[in-house]
This record gives sequence, C-alpha cells and structure tokens, in this order.
Amino acid sequence: MTDDASKKLPSWIEEYHRDVLSFRYRVDKVLFRGQSDFQRIDIVETAGFGRMLFNDGVAMVSECDEFIYHEMISHVPLFVHGAVESVLVIGGGDGGTVREVLKHPGVRHCRLVEIDPLVVEGCRKHLPVTAAALDDPRAEVTIADGVEFVAGTEERYDLVIVDSTDPVGPAEPLFGPQFYNDVKRVLTTGGMVVSQAESCLVEFEAQQSLIRTLHSVFERVHVYNYTNITYPGGLWSFSLATDADRCPLRDFDESGVGRSGIAFRYYNPRIHRAAFALPTFQEQALAPHLTPIQRAEEA
Amino acid sequence: MTDDASKKLPSWIEEYHRDVLSFRYRVDKVLFRGQSDFQRIDIVETAGFGRMLFNDGVAMVSECDEFIYHEMISHVPLFVHGAVESVLVIGGGDGGTVREVLKHPGVRHCRLVEIDPLVVEGCRKHLPVTAAALDDPRAEVTIADGVEFVAGTEERYDLVIVDSTDPVGPAEPLFGPQFYNDVKRVLTTGGMVVSQAESCLVEFEAQQSLIRTLHSVFERVHVYNYTNITYPGGLWSFSLATDADRCPLRDFDESGVGRSGIAFRYYNPRIHRAAFALPTFQEQALAPHLTPIQRAEEA
Repeated sequence: MTDDASKKLPSWIEEYHRDVLSFRYRVDKVLFRGQSDFQRIDIVETAGFGRMLFNDGVAMVSECDEFIYHEMISHVPLFVHGAVESVLVIGGGDGGTVREVLKHPGVRHCRLVEIDPLVVEGCRKHLPVTAAALDDPRAEVTIADGVEFVAGTEERYDLVIVDSTDPVGPAEPLFGPQFYNDVKRVLTTGGMVVSQAESCLVEFEAQQSLIRTLHSVFERVHVYNYTNITYPGGLWSFSLATDADRCPLRDFDESGVGRSGIAFRYYNPRIHRAAFALPTFQEQALAPHLTPIQRAEEA
Repeated sequence: MTDDASKKLPSWIEEYHRDVLSFRYRVDKVLFRGQSDFQRIDIVETAGFGRMLFNDGVAMVSECDEFIYHEMISHVPLFVHGAVESVLVIGGGDGGTVREVLKHPGVRHCRLVEIDPLVVEGCRKHLPVTAAALDDPRAEVTIADGVEFVAGTEERYDLVIVDSTDPVGPAEPLFGPQFYNDVKRVLTTGGMVVSQAESCLVEFEAQQSLIRTLHSVFERVHVYNYTNITYPGGLWSFSLATDADRCPLRDFDESGVGRSGIAFRYYNPRIHRAAFALPTFQEQALAPHLTPIQRAEEA
C-alpha cells in the first residue's frame, strides 16, 4: 500500500487470460502499487493507452477507452427509464460510472458501494479522469461489501448498476441469485438493474449463467453489447433486468438524449438501438432467457 | 518455405502493435512456417483460439472468430446489392471471404487475386475451414498483384471485396486513389466495393485516410463496424463505396436474408442495421466524407 513503487520500472505489464492469451502494455511509469485485503492494485502510465488500473493483474480501466464502458453502462438504462433520481453503483470504485450517471441533471443521489478502499484511494490520486466525479455533492462513497449492503439497506433506488469485475475473487457473489433477489427488493417501482455481463466470445459460460440467474428473478431481461480495446474478447455485454413493462427500444426516450445536452463520445441514439442487436450465436444461445425486443421496424 | 518448422515449439506467439501493446497466444503446435517474397507466414495451433494464420507476425485469421470478419465483409454488401453474380476478392488468400460469398447461390463466379502464393499454399494445407472454399468450381484463384490486376483486367464485377492486410508492406497500394479509380473501372453498373477499413480505436488515421480516398472516387461512401477478438483494437470497420443510388439500410433486402437459407453465426438483419450505427467520435470525424444513411426509423 504505497506510492513509491515507481522506483521499480517494469517496461511491460501483462494480463493473462486463462493461460491461453495475454495482453502486454508498455509501461512508462508505475504510479501506484498496493495490496489490499482483497486484491493487488496497480495503476500505471502506459505508452499507448493512457493510465490504466489493474486489479490482480486484470485491466479494469484505461484512459483510452473507459468512456465506452462507462457511457454504455449508464446512459442506456437512464434513457430507457427516463426518470431516474436515485442510483446505486456496486463496485466501480474508479468513479467512471458515477461520472456518467451524474451527467443526468435529474439524478439527485448516486451511492457508490465499493468493497476495496484501496481502489478508491488509488484512483482518487492517479485516475482523476474517472475518480473526480466522486467529489460531486450528489455522490456518496460507501466502503462496504455490495452483497451485504443490498441485503441490509432500507434505501430504495430507481437504478442499480452492478459495475463488477469478473466472477472470481471478491466479485463472485455479485453473480448469484441471492444478490439479485436483494437488488430486486431495493428497486423502486419501475426500477432497473444493469450489470457487467462478461463477453460472449471469451466468457460465454459466465454470461449465460448470469442471464439465467436474472431470468429467474426478474420479469424482463435484455442484453446489449459494446466493444472494448483493453478487455480480451472484443465484444462485451451488459444485462438490463426489470419487473417493469419497459422495452429498451420501444420505451427508449430518444428525444431526451438530445435534450440532455450531454456531450457523448461513444453513445448516441443509433448506438443505443444497435447495441441490442446480438450476433446470431449469442441471440440463439440466450434466447430462452431473454425478453423479445420490440423494435421500431417491427412495431 | 517448409512444413518442418514443427520441430521448433515456441510456447507463445506474439503480435506487437506499434511497440505499445502485444497479444501473446499460447501455441500447442507450429503447423507451417515459411518466408515468401512478401512476408513471413506462420500457421499455428493455439491453445485457446484454434488455428491461427500470422503474416509477418500479425494475426490474420483465427478459427475462433474468423466467421465474424468473413460474414460481415461478404453478406452486408451482397444483401444491399441484391443481385450479385460476379465477385472479385483482392487479398484474402485464406479463402474465408470466398467461402461466404459462395453461400449465395446467385453468385456464378468469384475470382480471388492473392499476391502471395505461400498464403494460399499454407492455408490449403492447414486452414481448410476457410481454404476449402477455393476448391469450389465457381472459385478461381489468381496469383497476382491486386493493383496490377484491376489496372489491366477486361473483366467486370458486381462486387469487389478488398480483403487486405494493414496499409504497410504488400497491401499499402490497396489503400491509394489510383487503385480505387481502377476498381471503379471494373465495376458493373450498380457495382460496389467493400474494403477492410482498419480500426477507429487503434488505427483511426489509416481509416480516415481510406475514407477520404474513397470519397474522392465514389458517389457514396459508408462505414460499418464489427468486432474481433484477435485484432488489437476491438472495434473494426469495413467501408462500402459505390456510384449507385443504393443506401445500405433503405435498400437492404431483408427478406432475402431469410430466403437465402444461409446459416449465419454472426450476421442477421438486426446486426446488418446495427453495424452502420457508428460511435459518436467516429461518426463526427468521418462525417465530411460519409454519405448519410437512411434508416427505417428516420424514413
């Protein structure tokens, strides 16, 4: 738990994926290195992708492409719901999701529940591009286990965002049915939950397991896709689940996107619709657990 | 130019991208290794992604995800044009694009012009999943420089597919205006050209340069996106250019997709439409050179 790791200057940082693939990034400077009760944290200045955060050697955030992930996990559900005032973010201690959520003036309170204080500490110091949002007066940071938090809280939220790492280590319970039953309990009427739903190309079993779990708990389950440079697998997904009768395309508040005045880098109404178009193999495999989408061209 | 490279068994094969990123794949077996007049060719059996082809150390094809690239470069223009009989593929000596093109029963002739015979030789031996299509009676393989071929041929094509590597080495002239003026000359009335158009995330300058070039030669230029695991950058693009008044969404023959009876793994009508939805940063940067799309919801 120290900042002086910059004395060591490895020239590359490497992420292994299942011992069959690795990504190596050339490192100009190690900014932060620490070991928490949960994981090892590295924040480095890379030569090609800006600053990057690694948890236990797995890339979490890079300055070059974090806008894609954070815009897609936030703006899609916010513009489907249309009237979100209170948001709970589980995980995501880097602050990027909170930053995008708070671009919506209607959001009055956004609570971030992060299990690992060292992630928040490191990002506040070295990833201001995402973590600066945590200083917003509407943001509240709670260091706690997200599973325990939703099991115990009396608060209610219009939108819950599960901004988790992969289903190994501290994030594993965030993929289970008990957690999602508790999430359901803390949602307001019409509330929604969006979750980091893994890759259909390299982690399809984990994705299918999550979607089955959501289908056992919620009336409607949808999946939408985005792309990431710094996650192995290229094509990644978010899930959107709710008990409300809201279709992410039929009920998409497109005019609200323009009215919001938000300057998006990745998101726009065409990307919103496109994200729900799934590759044939993914659509077929998930079909038993997904709610059909109503598209304009099919209406 | 030998098959006996399997005596050497490196445990990983590594692709460097601009000296800031590398992808390493664990190799179970080296199947083919050779040096042609143009490049080094490696075909390996990887532990996680099936067999892979590398040209000069850059991943070209992997069995795990080649269907995405090859379906998207082929079926999108074929279902926009609607009546393609003759196809010219420049590059793509692995045969994957020819395989998808020939799934359309209306295609009577598909000529592949590949500059490097060693690519075709290696793939015929070790990548039958793509190269077997080259034995189809409607396929004709010509070993020649694609630039010289289009400059000299008297043949005419309904669809030209530029299935090229990156704009370095042998593929560089395939990104220039002289080549595209010659492509225009060999197109039939209503003909189209589709090109591998690089990544908007890691090779955006090359993409913008290609789109400017196409805009200087053709009446209509469009860009559509797909995802790839084994190309660095996640989000990759194809360009579609034509002098015909055909909009890839307005004139998309959706009913033809079902009638074709083709078993797609990635492509479907929703993916077709979605692929033309560009991220905001890409849409804005390319806007001066792209033809506006007419979407159903805007019609």
